[in-house]
Amino acid sequence: MTTPPAEALRALRAQTPLVQCITNFVAMNFSANVLLAAGAAPAMIHCAEESGDFAGVVGALSINIGTLSPPWVDGMRAAIAGAQAAHTPWVLDPVGHFATPYRARVAQDLVDLRPTIIRGNASEILALAGEASDGRGVDASDPVAAAEGAARALAARTGGTVAITGAVDFVTDGARALRIHGGHPLMPRVTATGCALSSLVAAFAAVTEDPFDAATAALTLFAAAGQRAGPCAAGPGSFAPAFLDALYLARPEDLDWIERHAA
Amino acid sequence: MTTPPAEALRALRAQTPLVQCITNFVAMNFSANVLLAAGAAPAMIHCAEESGDFAGVVGALSINIGTLSPPWVDGMRAAIAGAQAAHTPWVLDPVGHFATPYRARVAQDLVDLRPTIIRGNASEILALAGEASDGRGVDASDPVAAAEGAARALAARTGGTVAITGAVDFVTDGARALRIHGGHPLMPRVTATGCALSSLVAAFAAVTEDPFDAATAALTLFAAAGQRAGPCAAGPGSFAPAFLDALYLARPEDLDWIERHAA
Amino acid sequence: MTTPPAEALRALRAQTPLVQCITNFVAMNFSANVLLAAGAAPAMIHCAEESGDFAGVVGALSINIGTLSPPWVDGMRAAIAGAQAAHTPWVLDPVGHFATPYRARVAQDLVDLRPTIIRGNASEILALAGEASDGRGVDASDPVAAAEGAARALAARTGGTVAITGAVDFVTDGARALRIHGGHPLMPRVTATGCALSSLVAAFAAVTEDPFDAATAALTLFAAAGQRAGPCAAGPGSFAPAFLDALYLARPEDLDWIERHAA
Repeated sequence: MTTPPAEALRALRAQTPLVQCITNFVAMNFSANVLLAAGAAPAMIHCAEESGDFAGVVGALSINIGTLSPPWVDGMRAAIAGAQAAHTPWVLDPVGHFATPYRARVAQDLVDLRPTIIRGNASEILALAGEASDGRGVDASDPVAAAEGAARALAARTGGTVAITGAVDFVTDGARALRIHGGHPLMPRVTATGCALSSLVAAFAAVTEDPFDAATAALTLFAAAGQRAGPCAAGPGSFAPAFLDALYLARPEDLDWIERHAA
Repeated sequence: MTTPPAEALRALRAQTPLVQCITNFVAMNFSANVLLAAGAAPAMIHCAEESGDFAGVVGALSINIGTLSPPWVDGMRAAIAGAQAAHTPWVLDPVGHFATPYRARVAQDLVDLRPTIIRGNASEILALAGEASDGRGVDASDPVAAAEGAARALAARTGGTVAITGAVDFVTDGARALRIHGGHPLMPRVTATGCALSSLVAAFAAVTEDPFDAATAALTLFAAAGQRAGPCAAGPGSFAPAFLDALYLARPEDLDWIERHAA
Repeated sequence: MTTPPAEALRALRAQTPLVQCITNFVAMNFSANVLLAAGAAPAMIHCAEESGDFAGVVGALSINIGTLSPPWVDGMRAAIAGAQAAHTPWVLDPVGHFATPYRARVAQDLVDLRPTIIRGNASEILALAGEASDGRGVDASDPVAAAEGAARALAARTGGTVAITGAVDFVTDGARALRIHGGHPLMPRVTATGCALSSLVAAFAAVTEDPFDAATAALTLFAAAGQRAGPCAAGPGSFAPAFLDALYLARPEDLDWIERHAA
């Protein structure tokens, strides 16, 4: 690993990278607050009239298909083209892409554009790789372990990094693979936690050479913040602000204590 | 009553129903968090290209006209058609429909589609039934009691259940009627509380036979959670997370302590 | 000054003005909660089919270009026309207008419509007045003091009031100018704080004669609430609810303690 998570967090705080997030309406506010708490600078510029221009000046781009519509897909395509022209890394979060034919089509089209990093839950990664899943809506019904093969296949197809998040996270670029422990059971009870994580992956991609390191750093920071926030929370309502505080208060050296194993 | 609130909450937690919410931009995040805290699974799929397909596979559909535009109305119509084809219950929240001619027209068109349940404040229900109201924007200036007749008339017109929420809530299906006490004065100081309640009504409609029971269960859970969160809050800022925690921590038997009277 | 901040806050609470906010997706929920906590009544009606009608009945209009698209610009234009026809004050927040050519053009077009009040950070005000800025995205890289001349020039051009917010705020109507101290360093770490402030400026414009007094009152209330919330917060996550509580709990006489100096 070129850049360990602690070093990546130091770089994030030092550089405050500008991250363009074209994300869903549910996740907009929380994603922006996650990026600000961690140390990045979010901007949610989305329409085709400006998304491509803006993608040319940001540190990274995050695309999330949670609340799709044709004009937003146009904005996503323009932004991806702008990012690719500028050799800027971009992240795809294929939220519940198996829920409708329209969404499945859009997700596959975006995968064909070869995202630098894909982050999803196990059901999303399984379905994206063309394997059977138990997923029904936008939540994950499948265990992460069941999707590790699908993640490796997807990484081979895109040439990028693929991360699956759940009770134990998994990240691979085809060649290397890691499992990351930590987090808290209340995390899936706060909406847009996964979506915000995808935007944070993009933020780290703006400050690291290697997308595999970026995904690892973001997952590690989330695992550490979840672990710290959990004991402070009575339920998901108090968990969310405690989690944002934990992202803000996390010291780089805290990330060295999060369990990671080669897979 | 076939399914008392406590039993409905047990069913909600056991089944985690998938609820499609086509709601306003202000309410999206809070509504999703309310559903997750209570035990349901929200998905905010809205555009006409996929909203009808998705409505065919969810447990219930919630429609809220808070931030309208023509493409969103198309998405609502497609979703309602999909829900009706699948005999799936759907809820209408006619937010501030009297505020403009456009909004009033859309609301009446949606009422003509005979929602399973309508939930609004007193001003909204009065105006929807064609009676004079003091309402000016999206807030309620009229007392709930003044709108009980309008709610009964509206239930007769749609053949569905109508709920009015305020200091004391009222729910009727034309034949039966209940008043529900509880809640907290800070609730109207947190934006989208009413909108989120409409989505929760839909969640309960997914797990109960009788829409009247579904509305009663959702209003009762909200009343209980408001009562519990209120004393923990210094103002609306701390009320919101305490309220989400209270929804998450509510035990089914807590709902038996909420005052309900036949009306 | 005709209406000092304490008196303006009394008027806000007594009148609960209806404020139409056409704002970005990130800021919608927080802006609504800020207005409700302070004592105003928000409504986010945005599309051209109804935004002009609604602007004719509200107390003030707030326009924010954070997440632009052509249909939203149409809605903004219709609302501004409605507000101007009804002699209703309106506020412009030119979020990150220098980030793309599309956004810059829209911002200049809206400035040409002569907003009653413009509120931005130093980078936005500098660029709006045609001066060089260090701004890159939507955050402020320039100090407030560097933009005071630009604010005066912009006030002369529009005939309105211009407010710059930062560590020390500045407000001018060309003739008069004030610097306002207070707030807290965590405020820029909570997304949409500035956007919400613009909507609060509009709320005060609905209850004061003089736009300069309205801007001063809103900035003073924000400074007081930030000062009160800061010591209660461990980070940006706990700051946000504490800040909303502080807006709600602020007494008019608290505003007399906020440092203000003629500039």
